[in-house]
Amino acid sequence: MSLKALFLNTSLKPSTNPSHTSALLDEAAYWYHEEGVETKEIRVADYTVLPGVEPDMGEKDEWPQLMEEVMKADILIIGTPIWIGEKSSVAKLVIERLSASSGEANEEGQAIYYNKVAGVVITGNEDGAQSSARDILFALQNFGYTIPPNVSAYWVGEAGPGDSYMDTDRDNEFTKKNVKMTAYNTMHFARLLKEHPIPAKGNLVE
Amino acid sequence: MSLKALFLNTSLKPSTNPSHTSALLDEAAYWYHEEGVETKEIRVADYTVLPGVEPDMGEKDEWPQLMEEVMKADILIIGTPIWIGEKSSVAKLVIERLSASSGEANEEGQAIYYNKVAGVVITGNEDGAQSSARDILFALQNFGYTIPPNVSAYWVGEAGPGDSYMDTDRDNEFTKKNVKMTAYNTMHFARLLKEHPIPAKGNLVE
Amino acid sequence: MSLKALFLNTSLKPSTNPSHTSALLDEAAYWYHEEGVETKEIRVADYTVLPGVEPDMGEKDEWPQLMEEVMKADILIIGTPIWIGEKSSVAKLVIERLSASSGEANEEGQAIYYNKVAGVVITGNEDGAQSSARDILFALQNFGYTIPPNVSAYWVGEAGPGDSYMDTDRDNEFTKKNVKMTAYNTMHFARLLKEHPIPAKGNLVE
Amino acid sequence: MSLKALFLNTSLKPSTNPSHTSALLDEAAYWYHEEGVETKEIRVADYTVLPGVEPDMGEKDEWPQLMEEVMKADILIIGTPIWIGEKSSVAKLVIERLSASSGEANEEGQAIYYNKVAGVVITGNEDGAQSSARDILFALQNFGYTIPPNVSAYWVGEAGPGDSYMDTDRDNEFTKKNVKMTAYNTMHFARLLKEHPIPAKGNLVE
Repeated sequence: MSLKALFLNTSLKPSTNPSHTSALLDEAAYWYHEEGVETKEIRVADYTVLPGVEPDMGEKDEWPQLMEEVMKADILIIGTPIWIGEKSSVAKLVIERLSASSGEANEEGQAIYYNKVAGVVITGNEDGAQSSARDILFALQNFGYTIPPNVSAYWVGEAGPGDSYMDTDRDNEFTKKNVKMTAYNTMHFARLLKEHPIPAKGNLVE
Repeated sequence: MSLKALFLNTSLKPSTNPSHTSALLDEAAYWYHEEGVETKEIRVADYTVLPGVEPDMGEKDEWPQLMEEVMKADILIIGTPIWIGEKSSVAKLVIERLSASSGEANEEGQAIYYNKVAGVVITGNEDGAQSSARDILFALQNFGYTIPPNVSAYWVGEAGPGDSYMDTDRDNEFTKKNVKMTAYNTMHFARLLKEHPIPAKGNLVE
Repeated sequence: MSLKALFLNTSLKPSTNPSHTSALLDEAAYWYHEEGVETKEIRVADYTVLPGVEPDMGEKDEWPQLMEEVMKADILIIGTPIWIGEKSSVAKLVIERLSASSGEANEEGQAIYYNKVAGVVITGNEDGAQSSARDILFALQNFGYTIPPNVSAYWVGEAGPGDSYMDTDRDNEFTKKNVKMTAYNTMHFARLLKEHPIPAKGNLVE
Repeated sequence: MSLKALFLNTSLKPSTNPSHTSALLDEAAYWYHEEGVETKEIRVADYTVLPGVEPDMGEKDEWPQLMEEVMKADILIIGTPIWIGEKSSVAKLVIERLSASSGEANEEGQAIYYNKVAGVVITGNEDGAQSSARDILFALQNFGYTIPPNVSAYWVGEAGPGDSYMDTDRDNEFTKKNVKMTAYNTMHFARLLKEHPIPAKGNLVE
């Protein structure tokens, strides 16, 4: 069974800049590849994503391109840096745009995100990872994604300014374990739901 | 296949008092019973649950009794009222106590909450439901629960003091739809995971 | 004493569109004008505000213009709509950009936002106002703003899709009271701090 | 002018146990004492504080004793440990109980917490400080407390299990600076409001 994982990296900067979050996403990618799952990382800031709550915000809006990738993927990992103890503004923008399509139905009449699986990968120089994870995972389950256990992987350092992820030896056992769990549990559930889709009873979009 | 759903109602008051959250949990119970799933509601405030992060906080602590019920259930619904725009202090206490056992392993070496499924049912007279849901669902996925799509059902009224749930005609379409989705999706996933448990790869407690 | 209040409206749409948040900000403006305080509302989406954490993100960035207005004002009110139970992505963007200058010092060596006062005005069709207020007020106190008591005014409706603020009769007593308190307490503190600035002891930026 | 600062330490354990939060509160106490401000730390878990939203929950409830201390103090610092990325259940309990009296009026007709000043001191072995601070500071401003700039001091370590505050050399510059700012800014504002109370206009409890 062939599975695809999409990483939406919501760094504030385009991919001409290095991203600590991308570095941690690479570690997740390792496990997906171990299991033959294809991964693709998109730096959202490389695209013009207009604010709004419609699926297409008009001429210059490149969200529809990203949305195609979202729909092709079985697994969505949102990667975000932490700013002021929270997910990035780009992460919120992505949530707003994903929300715009949450009322659309699949062939069974369920939300189009049903049978898709989500997780998060977060980096910051300090504090705010769980708060960021809460916001993102809640929104995604609300839109129709399944949230397996242990799918919030992060690295943060000690309180205050200091090293970011790539400045460290990238050897935090807790972070490594959670990256692995995030990858494996999203794969286990994506496989499970591909073979046994969520029954269309009691959960139709109206 | 026989399934059990446990409702932990984290109202601040014992069951000698009516609970708006209990009224909404009853509506969820209706759908579980429709599908032959047994439900049990426990008012946490009827028990002496000591604060702390050990599985058993000593002589007077009645959490171990509640924990037995948690382990017997395939589905855990945490019901909470909203106070100051947040889940109750009793809901946080329950999360702290559930956390104490999140490092224990099942026969496969995964966290003991693996293959169990969670959702939330929330009432308040106004504002705060999604914030409460975020906190609870995040913690539970972190401990090992699976969070299906659309498992956060709530009722809140307009901004400011005003009616609570039982003071209304209980006929909010959005609330009714989400109660039904919460019930059905937790049942769908509990059945799925009973037949196809999460593979023990990449997700072992160490 | 002449005071200025700046309203940054972080609606997702430019001012060619009506804004429910703007309608509630107008009610706050009424009280400021009663007391001879000048107000100015800026729809942030009318400007090109680039993501990033530098005071100036380059050629196309119009944040520096907005930052001038921020510095001229004694009072900052952030107005935000609610999307998915949270403040808008534009509100987070504004917080990120304000943060970029939080390390700059005034003549006394304190953060440049010292002796300025902040509050929030929020509208949504349902749930999420207090969560939005928490994020914004916390960030602003962290940057150097003073947060008086009762400066979080909002309107939200009953759970689920439904009327937004301008669709109602705009007669919610709780909302009106909190709009008035937000206006008066920000004015009381702005006057107080203009006459008695925060002593420069123990609070210098380094 | 004589000022009093009350530290409510919401550790899960009574004072027969050491508290990392208490260790950081001691550092705040140093600055208060430097300025001749009296401090008192109360470990909330030493008292029987019943859940509920009435000022007095009956016979066994010891909250009224704590409330007397709250009313005697010009400055309230809530100290909390972090559990599951959030403030403690005891901190939420304290917020619920403080809320019960937020509708009571002082001689001017304002909420009884007017002219009082608040801040937070937080410790955890990792992640969750700003999320905890957001919840507490928002609630307190909502009840009538004034929140000066830079009154959220914390220490957290790197992601994952690891040292708690007292296990470290207690020499984090960021933490020390914020503890000092929290102490000084709460003192500056307590003095200011003692000499120039908030005018009773536009902010009366009804």
